Amino acid sequence: MSADLPVPGSTERTRVRRLADKTVVDRNVLNAILDAGLVAHVAVITDGQPYVVSVAYARDGDRVLFHGSTGSRLFRGLATGDSTCLTVTLIDGLVLARSAFESSINYRSVMVLGSCVVLEGDEKDRALRVISDHLLPDRWDDIRPPTKKETAATLVLALSLEECSVKVGEGGPEEAEGDETWPAWGGHVPIREVLGEPVPDELVTDQPVPDYVRKWTR
Amino acid sequence: MSADLPVPGSTERTRVRRLADKTVVDRNVLNAILDAGLVAHVAVITDGQPYVVSVAYARDGDRVLFHGSTGSRLFRGLATGDSTCLTVTLIDGLVLARSAFESSINYRSVMVLGSCVVLEGDEKDRALRVISDHLLPDRWDDIRPPTKKETAATLVLALSLEECSVKVGEGGPEEAEGDETWPAWGGHVPIREVLGEPVPDELVTDQPVPDYVRKWTR
Repeated sequence: MSADLPVPGSTERTRVRRLADKTVVDRNVLNAILDAGLVAHVAVITDGQPYVVSVAYARDGDRVLFHGSTGSRLFRGLATGDSTCLTVTLIDGLVLARSAFESSINYRSVMVLGSCVVLEGDEKDRALRVISDHLLPDRWDDIRPPTKKETAATLVLALSLEECSVKVGEGGPEEAEGDETWPAWGGHVPIREVLGEPVPDELVTDQPVPDYVRKWTR
Repeated sequence: MSADLPVPGSTERTRVRRLADKTVVDRNVLNAILDAGLVAHVAVITDGQPYVVSVAYARDGDRVLFHGSTGSRLFRGLATGDSTCLTVTLIDGLVLARSAFESSINYRSVMVLGSCVVLEGDEKDRALRVISDHLLPDRWDDIRPPTKKETAATLVLALSLEECSVKVGEGGPEEAEGDETWPAWGGHVPIREVLGEPVPDELVTDQPVPDYVRKWTR
């Protein structure tokens, strides 16, 4: 499915110029990063002022889907096809070099450029399920289906993964020349997200936590 | 120190209109969110195309500091005072309502609007330390100090917290009317970041992991 798309970072706008050694052009890595994230940051320009809005999203093949309220002023520009950028950043660790300059954060990030299209009808219904399946796997069959009113109040947007870049920083530090003998410990400290114990709300009496929830990991 | 600033969300551009019940106007909450995060997403517009760039940052009183390379084309616009937006989002959990519509993600987020100023001289030197102290507490005294060349290659930007909004979603779901009796488990699943065991690099022979690193938590 991805075979027809250009490799990440292949356009002038997405070529990674800073820290180019962190650039990744593998679509499998791109997909894995998007599939591991929950929240993206999307740019919206209104009256010349940019806004960066966090949205829950899901990858659907070669595009990213996300939704917002039809009443949101910030989503209106996206719905009319304004140029946007969607970035997903996963933080993987702290990198302790022997200098501040070479110290950094390990991360995996995807930046997508393009214009969104509004999904309608069956495609919109399906997209709502795809987003739910990504964020809350196997939850869909347990919940009350969306009403027409709820769906109408939801704006569902799709952004193609055609123009994007991928950056990955991992492992320990690269030291500046001469710092190899500086007498400080160096290395990296991994960071990962973990899920805590599910907390039932006040409506739950004796229902156990569903098995599919127990299986979720991050 | 914060007393003279307007409350978060008090300008027309930062008033939270969607999900206004999640709005927070307490500067202590604002500060706590910024102090808990590592990475912010910043908007940059180049040739009409917005970019969302992730940056390591630190709060310094009533402003946010972050740095980039002086060679970065994306930072050039920020350095000349273009309007920007910096957003920090911390993901706290998954919210399982009895409907997809009311299901969501728990988060704490801060959105700051404004224009950056470039820091120079002593202020720049101090800012580099403030950023390091935030990301890697107590590391500074252990590492080789920045050289003039390194500092010259680093662009350090400050963005005032004067115009910002704060949103917090926490706890379990709010159900749509009538869903209280829907026969599905509901509640929330906390998400948190944890630090793993520090990994020494190949230059470390018998140095133990520093105590200050052991004390880091997320």
